[in-house]
Amino acid sequence: MTLVTVDDVRGAATRIASDVIRTPLLPCARLSDELGLRVLIKPESLQNTGSFKVRGALNTLLTWKENGTLPEGVVGFSAGNHAAAVAFAGQRLGVKAIIAMPHDAVESKVINVRRYGGEIVPTDDLLGTTEELASRYGYPPLLPFNLPEVIAGQGTVGLEIAEDAPEAAAVIVPVGGGGLISGIGAAVTALAPSMRVIGVEPEISNALSLAMTHGEVRELPRAERTIADGLAAPRAGNHTLENALAYVDEMAVVSENAIGEAWADLADSAKLIVEPAAAVGLAALRTGAVSLPAGCTVVLVVSGGNADLVKLAQARMG
Amino acid sequence: MTLVTVDDVRGAATRIASDVIRTPLLPCARLSDELGLRVLIKPESLQNTGSFKVRGALNTLLTWKENGTLPEGVVGFSAGNHAAAVAFAGQRLGVKAIIAMPHDAVESKVINVRRYGGEIVPTDDLLGTTEELASRYGYPPLLPFNLPEVIAGQGTVGLEIAEDAPEAAAVIVPVGGGGLISGIGAAVTALAPSMRVIGVEPEISNALSLAMTHGEVRELPRAERTIADGLAAPRAGNHTLENALAYVDEMAVVSENAIGEAWADLADSAKLIVEPAAAVGLAALRTGAVSLPAGCTVVLVVSGGNADLVKLAQARMG
Repeated sequence: MTLVTVDDVRGAATRIASDVIRTPLLPCARLSDELGLRVLIKPESLQNTGSFKVRGALNTLLTWKENGTLPEGVVGFSAGNHAAAVAFAGQRLGVKAIIAMPHDAVESKVINVRRYGGEIVPTDDLLGTTEELASRYGYPPLLPFNLPEVIAGQGTVGLEIAEDAPEAAAVIVPVGGGGLISGIGAAVTALAPSMRVIGVEPEISNALSLAMTHGEVRELPRAERTIADGLAAPRAGNHTLENALAYVDEMAVVSENAIGEAWADLADSAKLIVEPAAAVGLAALRTGAVSLPAGCTVVLVVSGGNADLVKLAQARMG
Repeated sequence: MTLVTVDDVRGAATRIASDVIRTPLLPCARLSDELGLRVLIKPESLQNTGSFKVRGALNTLLTWKENGTLPEGVVGFSAGNHAAAVAFAGQRLGVKAIIAMPHDAVESKVINVRRYGGEIVPTDDLLGTTEELASRYGYPPLLPFNLPEVIAGQGTVGLEIAEDAPEAAAVIVPVGGGGLISGIGAAVTALAPSMRVIGVEPEISNALSLAMTHGEVRELPRAERTIADGLAAPRAGNHTLENALAYVDEMAVVSENAIGEAWADLADSAKLIVEPAAAVGLAALRTGAVSLPAGCTVVLVVSGGNADLVKLAQARMG
């Protein structure tokens, strides 16, 4: 197996440029004051479909198209953001998208998939249903993270960060299956080697650090679902494990309480509607799970914004 | 009386550069699709203090400082955003800020003023209390809109728009007392003369268009308060009237219902926490109060983000 390289990420950036938003880095005075750091937010909540996932899905379909292997349709599985990304990319390229989603997926994410013409198959068995759909329709699966093309696509987030804030001491990345941090790591390690690549997982959903500790992919014990639904991967993948081992400097975990509090406060401090997954980086800084030298520049990757506004308001009320 | 010019605005931009965020223009795919336009959002909700008002307040104090007339303290009056801006600017320059605010000001705006060290005097008579405070302390008032330095400061929003999207067919601006649109008009008319400058007011709080129609400042009849609390100016000013007559191409009004719906939908579509005042432009496009050629580029100025998240969630639920 070979690592995803910065050239793979550069190729992805060229491929997807016309269909994604080059999100800005937003300085946040309130968080900077609170944390004693210079906090820059990379708001992928403002990306098309409301999350970074569209970068990887588009790069995969566009790569297949270049290779002459673009199928009539694809199947996918996802708690929501990858699902919307597959639907969006499929719509752009005229490829049908059929997506297995959990029965209890966040409503705004279900609506988002339908908005881009995705067909949803609700299920309690994401992987089984995906396999069944793939075999019934003869469509290939477009995996949410464990695919080099997906990792390279997500890496364009890191490319933009390295271009816009090469002086940053660290970039903090929410981690589920590990696709985003693998890609960001590939770009940042090459282009801004002094920037630390730090991943943050929910304590109860730490598939990537579990794999990194054991040197192999391990299934998480079936446990309580994390409030950060976008990070609820049952296991990492062989590709994300290998790239993470090569490119990630540090991993940290945060509690459900810390995520919930950071979620509401991030919305309030940064004036962005974000989803709980996007707030794990702030949670890690606040709890000391991640600690950085005073005054340094840190980039917080805010991975998505497909949240239930009513639940966000409830979290804000405490 | 003389008009604010693009050179005044350029001077303001230089003065305030180190204390304000140069907000980006954010493309919004969902609103673009819905409206059949290319919609770019100018998110002053992401500005320091959560609104554009900090630009004018800073430019005023910094101009006074250049002129050697910086006072020990200033008094202000405001529903909230100008109050926070005066507190912020005062804190930056070591000037005490005493601010008269309505008893029923939005709570998040009260908190915001305190955050920057502003002293709040609650009142039912903003103007009377401001005069009394000014005379008691011997501090000059820092007016919310009817001051050339404030207008030039707010105009830096227009300078940035003209630089970042000179091709836009129109810029749509929320209007209260008229400071923001006067300044934007001064910049855009000079730098991007083909861009239409369009103002939108609440139907029940239309102080600037009332003055423009009559050619003189008129007091609004005391009426129901608009949901767009940031636009509730009781009257325009002589400076904003004169600049608006010179620089504004079109004025429109929107109903309270249209503002409420656009407010919730803007949050949802753009993933930004905004205040009702910031949504009047979207309301005007949706209701046809403002109509633009299909496919053209329009900049929506999203003036502030100091909203009550719970009320926003309630508006979203309808």
